[in-house]
Amino acid sequence: MDISALLTSAGINTAVCVALFSLYSVLRKQPSLVSVYFGQKLAQASSKRHDPFWFGRLIPSASWIVKAWEASEDELYATGGVDAVVFLRAVVFSIRVFTVAAIVCLFLVLPLNYFGKEMSHKQIPDEPLNVFTIGNVKEGSKWLWAHCLALYIISCCACLLLYFEYKNITKMRLGHITASNSYPSHFTVIVRAIPWVKEESYNETVTKFFTDFYASSYLSHQMVYQSGAIQKLMSDAEKMYKMLKSTHMEKHCVPRLMRCGICGGTATSFKMLSNEPKSSRGESFFDGSDMRKKECGAALVFFRTRYAALVASEALQSPNPMSWVTDSAPEPRDIYWSNLCVPYRLFWIRKIAVIVASIFFVIFFLVPVVFTQSLVHLDKLKKIFPFLKDIGQRKILEQLISGYLPSVIFIIFLYVVPPLMLVFSTLEGAISRSGRKRSTCIKVLYFIIWNVFFANILTEAAIDHYQVSIKKLGDAKHIPNLLANAVPATATYFMTYVLTSGWASLSCELIQPFALLCNLFYRYILQNKDDSSYGTYTFPYHTEVPRVLLFGLLGLTCSILAPLILPFLLVYFVLAYLVYRNQILNVYVTKYETGGLYWPIVHNTTIFSLVLTQIIALGTFGIKESPIASGFTIPLIIGTLLFNEYCRQRFHPVFRKTPAKILIEMDRKDEHCGRLEEIHQKLQSVYCQFRSKSLNLHRTLDQNTTETVLDCTETVDVARLEDLEQNTPGKRSI
Amino acid sequence: MDISALLTSAGINTAVCVALFSLYSVLRKQPSLVSVYFGQKLAQASSKRHDPFWFGRLIPSASWIVKAWEASEDELYATGGVDAVVFLRAVVFSIRVFTVAAIVCLFLVLPLNYFGKEMSHKQIPDEPLNVFTIGNVKEGSKWLWAHCLALYIISCCACLLLYFEYKNITKMRLGHITASNSYPSHFTVIVRAIPWVKEESYNETVTKFFTDFYASSYLSHQMVYQSGAIQKLMSDAEKMYKMLKSTHMEKHCVPRLMRCGICGGTATSFKMLSNEPKSSRGESFFDGSDMRKKECGAALVFFRTRYAALVASEALQSPNPMSWVTDSAPEPRDIYWSNLCVPYRLFWIRKIAVIVASIFFVIFFLVPVVFTQSLVHLDKLKKIFPFLKDIGQRKILEQLISGYLPSVIFIIFLYVVPPLMLVFSTLEGAISRSGRKRSTCIKVLYFIIWNVFFANILTEAAIDHYQVSIKKLGDAKHIPNLLANAVPATATYFMTYVLTSGWASLSCELIQPFALLCNLFYRYILQNKDDSSYGTYTFPYHTEVPRVLLFGLLGLTCSILAPLILPFLLVYFVLAYLVYRNQILNVYVTKYETGGLYWPIVHNTTIFSLVLTQIIALGTFGIKESPIASGFTIPLIIGTLLFNEYCRQRFHPVFRKTPAKILIEMDRKDEHCGRLEEIHQKLQSVYCQFRSKSLNLHRTLDQNTTETVLDCTETVDVARLEDLEQNTPGKRSI
Repeated sequence: MDISALLTSAGINTAVCVALFSLYSVLRKQPSLVSVYFGQKLAQASSKRHDPFWFGRLIPSASWIVKAWEASEDELYATGGVDAVVFLRAVVFSIRVFTVAAIVCLFLVLPLNYFGKEMSHKQIPDEPLNVFTIGNVKEGSKWLWAHCLALYIISCCACLLLYFEYKNITKMRLGHITASNSYPSHFTVIVRAIPWVKEESYNETVTKFFTDFYASSYLSHQMVYQSGAIQKLMSDAEKMYKMLKSTHMEKHCVPRLMRCGICGGTATSFKMLSNEPKSSRGESFFDGSDMRKKECGAALVFFRTRYAALVASEALQSPNPMSWVTDSAPEPRDIYWSNLCVPYRLFWIRKIAVIVASIFFVIFFLVPVVFTQSLVHLDKLKKIFPFLKDIGQRKILEQLISGYLPSVIFIIFLYVVPPLMLVFSTLEGAISRSGRKRSTCIKVLYFIIWNVFFANILTEAAIDHYQVSIKKLGDAKHIPNLLANAVPATATYFMTYVLTSGWASLSCELIQPFALLCNLFYRYILQNKDDSSYGTYTFPYHTEVPRVLLFGLLGLTCSILAPLILPFLLVYFVLAYLVYRNQILNVYVTKYETGGLYWPIVHNTTIFSLVLTQIIALGTFGIKESPIASGFTIPLIIGTLLFNEYCRQRFHPVFRKTPAKILIEMDRKDEHCGRLEEIHQKLQSVYCQFRSKSLNLHRTLDQNTTETVLDCTETVDVARLEDLEQNTPGKRSI
Repeated sequence: MDISALLTSAGINTAVCVALFSLYSVLRKQPSLVSVYFGQKLAQASSKRHDPFWFGRLIPSASWIVKAWEASEDELYATGGVDAVVFLRAVVFSIRVFTVAAIVCLFLVLPLNYFGKEMSHKQIPDEPLNVFTIGNVKEGSKWLWAHCLALYIISCCACLLLYFEYKNITKMRLGHITASNSYPSHFTVIVRAIPWVKEESYNETVTKFFTDFYASSYLSHQMVYQSGAIQKLMSDAEKMYKMLKSTHMEKHCVPRLMRCGICGGTATSFKMLSNEPKSSRGESFFDGSDMRKKECGAALVFFRTRYAALVASEALQSPNPMSWVTDSAPEPRDIYWSNLCVPYRLFWIRKIAVIVASIFFVIFFLVPVVFTQSLVHLDKLKKIFPFLKDIGQRKILEQLISGYLPSVIFIIFLYVVPPLMLVFSTLEGAISRSGRKRSTCIKVLYFIIWNVFFANILTEAAIDHYQVSIKKLGDAKHIPNLLANAVPATATYFMTYVLTSGWASLSCELIQPFALLCNLFYRYILQNKDDSSYGTYTFPYHTEVPRVLLFGLLGLTCSILAPLILPFLLVYFVLAYLVYRNQILNVYVTKYETGGLYWPIVHNTTIFSLVLTQIIALGTFGIKESPIASGFTIPLIIGTLLFNEYCRQRFHPVFRKTPAKILIEMDRKDEHCGRLEEIHQKLQSVYCQFRSKSLNLHRTLDQNTTETVLDCTETVDVARLEDLEQNTPGKRSI
């Protein structure tokens, strides 16, 4: 592949990008698509623009770019939460590092590579790309110190930036914990693996255990029910509702039954609800003795203070570590109910099964990777398989096949991965949606780094060695040398990958083809004109974080070896910055978040990329016979690893445990303000296991009040709850 | 090496063993050596046998064996603690497994190996040893299912035994925690990395922090002082004491000052001690303002209940994870004071340095291993280095060199390792002596498995391939095949290793040459006739646990490949059982213990050995072209790994954290009995930083009351402490 092929690819991609960005700027102005492109705004306010047509709707504009640029971090924090800010910080971090890297490498390293060997240069467009890589520098060259210097500058710069980002994000995480005054999760502990005692329901066992051992801090609890059985009841209730619909019931009656009917700790509370008008038939569904049979060995236990909940969640409760397993609870919206019902003793074997399945999946996935990568090396393949020579006759076709097609095929294959990994993470037993997404993110990251980066490099090495000779296999015995040989050679593929996968994925992200198709399907095939009925999406961290990190890895490893990739990457990151800001502000709804837990992933991956870059550089300097440059690289590797260890000691514990000091201070403040009692009352009804079902019902009931649906957990009617409290004296267990 | 050489080696070793065992049975009857062989008894009671001479003293007897055999587990628990029982359980476990293995392998596998190929057998004494290994079974033999069956029996038997042992030891550990009613460590938390606040001493900072955040449960605290400065003061005090010695002071006066002078939380308590008769000069040493300067950023904090201490030790205290680091405290005798003074922020870098140093040490150590191993293969070496042929002329010399010398050289080299690893563990920052020993045990274990097992096998493989041809290198590309080739070949060396290192080490353990020499040196050169002045030893778990586990590894890996090793191993384990029981009952004093934390090490190493055995068997079956046997081995490996994971989930958490339930119940019982107040008073003086110094002083003072020294921590005079309490109103910080 030469410069002109690269430029062809870049041209196609730029054109596609500009077209799609313009298309987006038009589409977003269509009132009918407001639910696709303004999910976030729609969730915040139910106001709609009702101007049917104005001319500007059809003219592409760049106003969204300006808006995305101008938004402050506070605004982003308010709409996207800590995770969104962390993600954008990762993008900003990449922009900063690659700006430095681009300046250093394009002005210092690139000329040295280009003039590395005494040779007659062609005109630049016809120049093959490997002239710009370190492969062009002759052995024993004195100019390799410049590469080493560039490596030092990039590494130090990256480490410094990482340190300050980690520090800031730790502060942000702590701030997030303190700022959230009435997060119910702080007071709640999830207990799983409740032992089965004969002639006692799980409910009684939990009450006994916690009144016995946590008498002073235990408030109440709420059992988790087998979802299968209850959901059947719910659908029955729904049918009944539809039957009764024509009689024009009082608004909000049924959904309230659904929302709070099952949440309240003990079976007695169900009977209390029968006081509600018109819901007298509901009583027969929720019979106490019946519910007892449906109880799972899991419960949500509420404590009087945050600190008590923290202590209970961290301690090993029982001498048998497989019973009374406690974890800090996720937020009500974040909790993943169906995994709570799974017996705890199955999780260890599920986890192992998932690991094994993931490994098999990764192995199986090498097939498309190898196929894809081999297309890039069409010229090499032609020598091996002569029948391919016909294709080579038409130059444009060849450029298209080697420059564009591989990435496209590969991307299509890659679309299968995140949903599958999400299923794996669910099976693994995540108890929160955010935790599941984070676990998926890690799996996709491993997958993508292995299958995109290493598999490509190894395929390259294998094909390359087939072509050159068996002799080189001896040289490449050591991994650094193998990598050092293969990375510059694979840089071409990575450049096209950045262009296609990177730039195109951003356009895709903007246009939201899936949501758009859904919208059209609903609107024109189902004839359903309501905007709020296809739901909103949360930010897909599990696909976007690995993607950004992969590009970081590609950029760092290629930086000093094949610096030509850096401008394309910089463009990608700047576009990503704008696009993701726009998406966070307008499209995605933040229903749950991890509170910055993505940063350790970003940090560790960046350190991995840095060390890998340094190891590859070490191998390259070895091949190029420059002992001084090699010698100087080793302390850099050691320094980077030490820096990582320091960060792990200094910042990481805060991401695993919540500091006791902060929670104690929050408890005190609440006690001082007399707010604790109010929070305790809220707690009783805030965790609703069958909320999602009731939400759907709610929607069918009252299609215009989307905001009440989305604020369901926050807008609990305190006065009504107090009435309930008075009617259920046995509910509080102390 | 043939059977006769092996029998020569076995003969020499048996003779040496019998001689040394007899020598021991004589030596232990000598009254002058009672301190060497009855350290434990001496510590328990100060009675001495004063019969100067009776004839039986010079006749070897087997009475000690009978006594060791008859001792019950309760007796061992009482004298040696949980760790001793755990260690003996590991030995018993090995005896059981290898009994099964010996029966199965000697009667099923050995005949199959011997008649595996159609060949003319020599007379058995002249038969080379490899005739008895799996190497003698011909390729594609139908009898390999017997080997596979033997592997199944051994693995299942080992796993079953491991499960029950783990269960019992978990129970024992929990029982140990509950039984120890007044262990001060349960109420105590070690706080390190106390932040430095300007114009405030560490003492004040600690008081403020804990009265603020743990108001309800905080009792008091005790600062840790820089040992260098204080120890100088102590030695000054000692000098003073010696000066005053002639004036016949009141007994116990000075040691009490020393023991309790510095322990008591605040500087004010020192002044109170000046009420003691004759110690008025001590006051000038312990001036409050002076002490403040010597404070370290570490303290022992006492809590009102065990549960409160547990909670405080497990929580992340501050938003900065590098300050207010809490750990559960070790027992007073167990605590390793000098590491508490080291600034906490240095430990992470120290840990890394220790890891790097250990790796370098292991690499360096390969030199003696290679040298030793090459001697075993004298016949192969002779072909490479012809000048060695002269040695071969004398057959006995050759047998001695190949059968005995390598192990002896190797053992001498190995003696350097444990002390060095102990230094490493100290540098790493262990805060307890038992923790340091446990950490050393793990290091020595890694070292010994790598340097004895793998290094020998790899050397063997290298020499073997040099001899046979380069061609085989292709076959041995895969690790299981390499191991499968090398293990039967190395079995000869391992047999001699069991004979020399194993049997001889037990004799050595009995005779206690080091203690014996010390005793003789004291008695005849220093003319010091006192028994109690050279101190007692604690059981060297850090050398003995790895040794027993190494023999377990050797036995398991060789079991089905070269079953001839099993009888020798069984003899070793039976002897070990008797000898270690005797030593625990008579010689070693249990000053501190981990509470069974050695068992997870034993468990994990055994699982590692099992899986390694199975992998080697897999390789062997592959080489022997038996796909059925290979196929059946794979589920066994998976099953073993799953079993290990189950045990890790089911039992291991109890070895990392103490279950809250147990501590809460203990607290309740104490409160019910009204014992808490008494324990709280004890706590104030039980941790004495400079006790060891005072102990020496004490010994010089009163040489006959060893039991008071050893019970120092338990025999706190409560009445006297109450007097003290009344005089120090500001001492309790709440």
